[in-house]
Amino acid sequence: MHLLHRAKDCQTRSEIDHFGFLENGTFKQRYLVADDYWEQPGGPILFYTGNEGDIAWFCNNTGFMWEIAEELGAMLVFAEHRYYGESLPFGEDSYSDSKHLNYLTSEQALADFAVLIHSLKSSVRGAQNSPVIALGGSYGGMLSAWLRMKYPNIVVGALASSAPIWQFPGMVPCGDYYKIVTKDFANSGHNCDINIRRSWTAINNVSSTVPGLQWLSEEFSLCSPLKNQNDVLVFKNWLQETWVSLAMVDYPYEANFLQPLPPWPIQEVCKYLTFESSVSDYHLLHGVSQAANVYYNHTGGTSCLNTSQTATGSLGFLGWFYQACTEMVMPMCTDGVHDMFEPEEWNFQAFSEECYGMFGVRPRADWAETVYGGKEVKAHSNIVFSNGGLDPWSSGGVNHNITETLVSIVIPEGAHHLDLRYSNKLDPPSVRAARALEVKYFHEWIRQANTGRKTVAEHFDPKAGKKLITLK
Amino acid sequence: MHLLHRAKDCQTRSEIDHFGFLENGTFKQRYLVADDYWEQPGGPILFYTGNEGDIAWFCNNTGFMWEIAEELGAMLVFAEHRYYGESLPFGEDSYSDSKHLNYLTSEQALADFAVLIHSLKSSVRGAQNSPVIALGGSYGGMLSAWLRMKYPNIVVGALASSAPIWQFPGMVPCGDYYKIVTKDFANSGHNCDINIRRSWTAINNVSSTVPGLQWLSEEFSLCSPLKNQNDVLVFKNWLQETWVSLAMVDYPYEANFLQPLPPWPIQEVCKYLTFESSVSDYHLLHGVSQAANVYYNHTGGTSCLNTSQTATGSLGFLGWFYQACTEMVMPMCTDGVHDMFEPEEWNFQAFSEECYGMFGVRPRADWAETVYGGKEVKAHSNIVFSNGGLDPWSSGGVNHNITETLVSIVIPEGAHHLDLRYSNKLDPPSVRAARALEVKYFHEWIRQANTGRKTVAEHFDPKAGKKLITLK
Repeated sequence: MHLLHRAKDCQTRSEIDHFGFLENGTFKQRYLVADDYWEQPGGPILFYTGNEGDIAWFCNNTGFMWEIAEELGAMLVFAEHRYYGESLPFGEDSYSDSKHLNYLTSEQALADFAVLIHSLKSSVRGAQNSPVIALGGSYGGMLSAWLRMKYPNIVVGALASSAPIWQFPGMVPCGDYYKIVTKDFANSGHNCDINIRRSWTAINNVSSTVPGLQWLSEEFSLCSPLKNQNDVLVFKNWLQETWVSLAMVDYPYEANFLQPLPPWPIQEVCKYLTFESSVSDYHLLHGVSQAANVYYNHTGGTSCLNTSQTATGSLGFLGWFYQACTEMVMPMCTDGVHDMFEPEEWNFQAFSEECYGMFGVRPRADWAETVYGGKEVKAHSNIVFSNGGLDPWSSGGVNHNITETLVSIVIPEGAHHLDLRYSNKLDPPSVRAARALEVKYFHEWIRQANTGRKTVAEHFDPKAGKKLITLK
Repeated sequence: MHLLHRAKDCQTRSEIDHFGFLENGTFKQRYLVADDYWEQPGGPILFYTGNEGDIAWFCNNTGFMWEIAEELGAMLVFAEHRYYGESLPFGEDSYSDSKHLNYLTSEQALADFAVLIHSLKSSVRGAQNSPVIALGGSYGGMLSAWLRMKYPNIVVGALASSAPIWQFPGMVPCGDYYKIVTKDFANSGHNCDINIRRSWTAINNVSSTVPGLQWLSEEFSLCSPLKNQNDVLVFKNWLQETWVSLAMVDYPYEANFLQPLPPWPIQEVCKYLTFESSVSDYHLLHGVSQAANVYYNHTGGTSCLNTSQTATGSLGFLGWFYQACTEMVMPMCTDGVHDMFEPEEWNFQAFSEECYGMFGVRPRADWAETVYGGKEVKAHSNIVFSNGGLDPWSSGGVNHNITETLVSIVIPEGAHHLDLRYSNKLDPPSVRAARALEVKYFHEWIRQANTGRKTVAEHFDPKAGKKLITLK
């Protein structure tokens, strides 16, 4: 992954197991540092809490931090999440079995971040009193929020962009996610969601014969032709993920996050799906094929479509699936009525079996709520939750203010963490306003931290201590 | 351990490893429940966060909770800490090696408590909306404070009695602890600290000959006679621990916490140590021997003194030593000038070697500060830190208010968590005031929780959500 920016590529050694002492090994954790605009001593540190992928890729896609560094006089740090990119605790063996995967948890990742920040503040000249603000998007945004919740000694505040901290059992309806995807398509072209909803039956019909399987494979230019009904299931899942990915990256300008795409890509997709629903299955699926090509072949260089891949290789899907199979249990469901997908209930037991078969571990459905608080987070402070109205992940996000210091920013025209991207002349006003507000909060947290430090110093005056306090 | 109270003796199954998924076993965790005064639905739960020992023993020594249950309409729960009492994750093998000891950490214990509370609130009828307050003393007090810090979704507040959350590297001077012990003896009788300070040299002198070793063994009625200089070292450590234990339990009335003792036991001890320092070594050590018998033989039933034991068998010393050898790194030192002990510097390296030799693990000196915040705890709320002025552990405690909701209560005449004990007609006014203030805070936290729940409910009104908020 080529770095777009002049950042120092660094490594630190972190404990493989922060929560046990038998495993005494350390691993090399990668992080990137840019301090061109850092005002030392004491200038703030913006700390990107890396998520499930190569940190350079997140660095390149988080232009917001680069654009505000000068105004804040801030050092930028992008820390890679263990088990992703180059930060592999056991090198090539990291994914070899459940024994090696055992240290891939969000708690360990948060501890890595806390230890890294602690170490930077003690070792980098001028950083001792630097307030640190956590930033992240998606799972990285959840980590930012949780870092502030669990380690408020380490970070003074957090921007959690498109962070679905409530996408856990019992917190939000499991169907909301796909409803938002559907709404994005419904709003992007006449009949668009209706034709996609119909497409599943069309695929079932066409794929019921051998010539139909062959036609589908050719129509979609599949790299591996469909051979049986199992392949058809994979094909339909792949198409469903394609529509979901489009909803995540429905940005107003040409961009390359999961794939290179035109501005408002769902509108482009929907141009091929405007026909009335009386057309034949073949006619319908021809439109779907053209629509899929918007996502997979915008640049025209793709010779065939691979149903085993839907997005950039910079994301670590296997690692994320392990996390989903352990802590990150995120119920999803469809009903085909309020969404445009084939009906599928959330089945925890089946999911658990799948996880056990794949990794030899079982998910703990209630753990995330217990450890990260679920809806009961009001005791925390200084977290901005931003969400895009187009982003399906906003279903599990915080979309209202919880307290004066746990606030929500909604960007109605925004897809997945649009606010973290570079500014663009095609940005809607809502994301410009969101970014401006976020920077205001950063200033406020930095001010509090600098004031707070004085207050703490006064408190620690030995003459001030040792008196009995009465309740007000 | 005989339970003084009518409490239900219960067990729950808890994950052996909350922070990894490879170890999928559970263990039986013991907890005691008393709900005679509980006002359901919604009455509060007072939750004792068990420390390093048998939970029944802590239950018997925490009369405060039993005395306030009726006023608060509260359910009492006393949860045993994993690896202590009957809550052994691997039964008899729990202490067999570092592999089995690997899950003995404060983080795992806090997770046990959080999961237990979560489970009680979902399974006990009428407990769903019960505010839970954590209480604990000593290490249990640290756990109470940390439970509130790390899981404010689970407990609405905490009373951390005699909790040395700052007795970690770099936070307080390592000599403060023994200075307080010394002060207690200096204030309890003429020449008392001076004679104890001199006793170490007297022991060295007398023990330098074989007849001297024999004399010492007989004078102190030691169960195993001193044979060599190593035995003398053990003997001196045992005496030092005896004076420390006396400082911890210097209660104003007859009590039996670590040992059965008279009221103000240090005053009793010091009655045997009032002579001028010109007396002979033998004269001096005769006084020391009589003084030690105050601690070890108050009831007159002790036939010999055992230098391998200083306190109740209800405490799990091996487990605590493992914890000290991993996370709970608490620097202590003496200089023989500001304290009455032989000079001994804090030597982390030597300590680390000792730990490695004993358990095959090495302590992590900085981890406690990173994970629990050290002095940087002001972002948290609703914790009362109470400390006794006589208690050596107050050296690492919070003895001043940090914020309006992180408050300190100092009990000048109090020893180790006196406030948690039953009230007594000999209680000093300061501990009566402390307890009254603590109950006021409990009422306030319960009120907040009940109000807060309504506020959260309002917030979750879907009509109230989804608006862009501007910074005040």
